[in-house]
Amino acid sequence: MNNCVFCAIAAGEAPSTTVLDTEDVVAFLDIRPIARGHVLVIPKQHSTDLDSMEPALGSAVFAAGQRISRALRRSDLRSDGANLVVNDGKAAFQTVFHTHLHVVPRWTGDKLRFAGGFLTRRLREPEHTAAAIREGLARLAAEEVG
Amino acid sequence: MNNCVFCAIAAGEAPSTTVLDTEDVVAFLDIRPIARGHVLVIPKQHSTDLDSMEPALGSAVFAAGQRISRALRRSDLRSDGANLVVNDGKAAFQTVFHTHLHVVPRWTGDKLRFAGGFLTRRLREPEHTAAAIREGLARLAAEEVG
Ligand SMILES: [Zn+2]
Ligand SMILES: [Zn+2]
Repeated sequence: MNNCVFCAIAAGEAPSTTVLDTEDVVAFLDIRPIARGHVLVIPKQHSTDLDSMEPALGSAVFAAGQRISRALRRSDLRSDGANLVVNDGKAAFQTVFHTHLHVVPRWTGDKLRFAGGFLTRRLREPEHTAAAIREGLARLAAEEVG
Repeated sequence: MNNCVFCAIAAGEAPSTTVLDTEDVVAFLDIRPIARGHVLVIPKQHSTDLDSMEPALGSAVFAAGQRISRALRRSDLRSDGANLVVNDGKAAFQTVFHTHLHVVPRWTGDKLRFAGGFLTRRLREPEHTAAAIREGLARLAAEEVG
């Protein structure tokens, strides 16, 4: 084992509240959310940063992030938008050295600021939040079929 | 014409300082950079936001962004990292309604902050900056061949 907490989450060996799980990526609630529904998307295969991540995995991570942002708009969280953010390298506020994409839902007038890295808050009602996002993903899938 | 400035740039009908141009995307210097080498990546095909952008184009945009962040590290700009950011929706600070990804190079200790949306600065020496990024892309390509 490489002692990486995100690898442990990807392997199901550390707890997380998952919203999406595909062959290549897993998405789960950030345990230090700056907004309700703040999700992290990671490639299951370890890479420390964008420089060492397979481009195909980068595309899979971003595709999942786009999908989650679309699901958030359709979920009962009713977001009006989102910030998708990769902090690549310590100089760019990266704190966990397994590449990850933040999806931060936004609401009109929420006054959220990204100052000096991310603010940290405690995770409230994670299961309820994750269920709302999963339901948003289901609504998006239904839309695509219908 | 749809009166979108990024569509005009993609069509070569408005000026921009381009660093990368592929079948699906174009990347150019942000005219209001928050750091030297601040690049925007856009799909050539218009979409207002992540909700209306073809997922395949989203993957192409992100792949270009990853590539540019890797090139910046190899360029004479010598970045230590980067923030890759999509501001999706007005609630998330989006100001131009043609989907775009910011690639903001970072240097250790640069004290850059993302407060209340992006700060704006004037573009200095755009041709020199773009040439350095293009040279970084060439170095990355050479590494991949070698
Ligand atoms: Zn890992
Ligand atoms: Zn456009």
